Amino acid sequence: MTKDFDNPVNREDTWSTRWDLYEDKDIIPLWVADMDFKSPKIVQDAFQKRINHGIYGYTEIPDELNNEIVSLYKKRNWAIEKDWIVWLPGLETAIHQIYQLIMDTQSVIIPKPIYPPFLNAAKYSSKKIIFHDLKEVDGRLVYDIEKLSIEAEDNSWLMFVNPHNPGGTIFSKEELADLSELVIKKNIHIFSDEIHSDFILEPDDKHMNIATLEGMKERVITLDSLSKTFNIAGLNCAYAIIPNSSLRRQFQNLFRGQIPPPNLFGLIATLVCLQDGDSWKADLMQYLKTNKDFLIREFKDRKDVHFIEPRGTYLFWFKVLNTDCDDLKKHFEAFGVGLSNGKDFGKPGWMRLNFGTNLELLSKAVKRMHQALDALT
Amino acid sequence: MTKDFDNPVNREDTWSTRWDLYEDKDIIPLWVADMDFKSPKIVQDAFQKRINHGIYGYTEIPDELNNEIVSLYKKRNWAIEKDWIVWLPGLETAIHQIYQLIMDTQSVIIPKPIYPPFLNAAKYSSKKIIFHDLKEVDGRLVYDIEKLSIEAEDNSWLMFVNPHNPGGTIFSKEELADLSELVIKKNIHIFSDEIHSDFILEPDDKHMNIATLEGMKERVITLDSLSKTFNIAGLNCAYAIIPNSSLRRQFQNLFRGQIPPPNLFGLIATLVCLQDGDSWKADLMQYLKTNKDFLIREFKDRKDVHFIEPRGTYLFWFKVLNTDCDDLKKHFEAFGVGLSNGKDFGKPGWMRLNFGTNLELLSKAVKRMHQALDALT
Repeated sequence: MTKDFDNPVNREDTWSTRWDLYEDKDIIPLWVADMDFKSPKIVQDAFQKRINHGIYGYTEIPDELNNEIVSLYKKRNWAIEKDWIVWLPGLETAIHQIYQLIMDTQSVIIPKPIYPPFLNAAKYSSKKIIFHDLKEVDGRLVYDIEKLSIEAEDNSWLMFVNPHNPGGTIFSKEELADLSELVIKKNIHIFSDEIHSDFILEPDDKHMNIATLEGMKERVITLDSLSKTFNIAGLNCAYAIIPNSSLRRQFQNLFRGQIPPPNLFGLIATLVCLQDGDSWKADLMQYLKTNKDFLIREFKDRKDVHFIEPRGTYLFWFKVLNTDCDDLKKHFEAFGVGLSNGKDFGKPGWMRLNFGTNLELLSKAVKRMHQALDALT
Repeated sequence: MTKDFDNPVNREDTWSTRWDLYEDKDIIPLWVADMDFKSPKIVQDAFQKRINHGIYGYTEIPDELNNEIVSLYKKRNWAIEKDWIVWLPGLETAIHQIYQLIMDTQSVIIPKPIYPPFLNAAKYSSKKIIFHDLKEVDGRLVYDIEKLSIEAEDNSWLMFVNPHNPGGTIFSKEELADLSELVIKKNIHIFSDEIHSDFILEPDDKHMNIATLEGMKERVITLDSLSKTFNIAGLNCAYAIIPNSSLRRQFQNLFRGQIPPPNLFGLIATLVCLQDGDSWKADLMQYLKTNKDFLIREFKDRKDVHFIEPRGTYLFWFKVLNTDCDDLKKHFEAFGVGLSNGKDFGKPGWMRLNFGTNLELLSKAVKRMHQALDALT
């Protein structure tokens, strides 16, 4: 099965955001976070059935889809109710629209680094934005609870991402408990993006929804989607879980008409992946772990690279040390590798590499990166 | 070719908004405006090619799609520029979001009747809403320019729909010129929904974009989509044409991140229908004209029904006369026909019938409607 992931698929002429940026250039695109892997065959089969039918009119969320979400969270040890689920056409929309929901909130806490939509949405808001620098402890990016307890204002909202993007941290139960304690004390609400929760690359890691901690359920909006796991980001389908009925009503009222519902193909893919995607997902995680281990082997001895070991994403977050190069993105591009610029995540000097591709292409890119790094010193 | 439209397609178990409302009931659904026809085969073929590829990652708007839109409008005698096109995940989203764009506008003019999203969006806005009752002249619903010139405030926005939904009016060049004159005099801007512009059921009708009238280009946002013509409303793809660069920038800034881009399958279907959909479209119009003529024959001699002849939609807008029935929708449902309630269009007592279905089913529904009407008197 793993062999499938090894097969390179040509993504030219498919309107791919990732590949079209460097169209006609010899630059391997390891930036925006989708994967170069085909979605599981079950998606193709479900689409096939639907296109044989051939009518694509106005579409309802099928009840079986809500049932599958409830089952999914049961496996994650969270007994959610069907009514708590709100369907969305994507996470980024929610990350931006949340500011309209929290009108009476004075301040919003955003950890740094964080993936770009959170910083872009903050730019357009009129809230006081409090940035919290994550600290590195034992090679992991975590919250500095002591510092946060000084920075955070009462009644604010925290933009939380777990597993963290770009750092890949899967927060432990103890870390979540410490954060929850502070959150409850200061009456903070949490907007929790948990879209990478399927990406558990190491057997001893376990993702926990922060809403499941004691006293947290009513103060958390959890965001999730199958778009990362099954590589269907172009199909615009996501959901929120909002146990707090008043918050949920406000959220639904805000979105009614203002944003479209998920489209037909997004719903079909999501349903079939929930029903029958588990074995493909297990194979994917195994493949990504191989890629991750490869990256660590390649970079662990370089004195000019400092990286965070990715545990819960397919993203490799690293810093180039001892350089005065003021445009690392351009520098790597000149050597044939397209990476995401840490500046866009609030951390100039850092870079994000997407290793959701076949090992052969990744190896080729890493060779080029070594050359690029060697040229800096 | 017309035979294809005659073939009933079972839409059960396809999550159809239209059909699922009356699941397990013997009620023929002629309400929400999608059609019971398969999209053209070219859509299926294009989808087939794409699902054989099998990667559905982040997707860009292909340049060829913008080129096709430019060509389409060239055929419509409007030389638009590529830069004027803004892609959207649906019209309803724009109908709601427009209120955030026109923050400094005091009042908004909405014609009545009008299809429900315009009334719902107005409810959530803080603007002064001025309703303008369309008047019936020679069996057509048109603007009462004299009355409008008194009602309309300077610097307001007009929510315009052409062809009109639910009335099906295709406004003539003279009517558009009269309206434009007033609009320019009062410095009004227009949000113009022209999604039914392909639906020309009579050879002597011609749809004109209001933005093409003298002095209008800079004050109109034109909205369009192929979702009605090719029956792809479940695929969430639409666009705006905004020649005014300042307005366009505001519109783009407003939407950036706040709403998702169109999804992959919506883009694919839109492109292929623009490229190769013309002959299917011509056949569709012919079929719909047959349906329309049938409805007119059936209802023209009924003294208890007053209707507007549909010219530019597949919607039949009619009033039941001399009845004290206070829930006509329920009454027709009791006789096995599901219609849209005129109340939701701002006109209690009227009903809207969707004749985008095969003639056999339409005939069956009309028989039931005669029974329902007979039972009222």
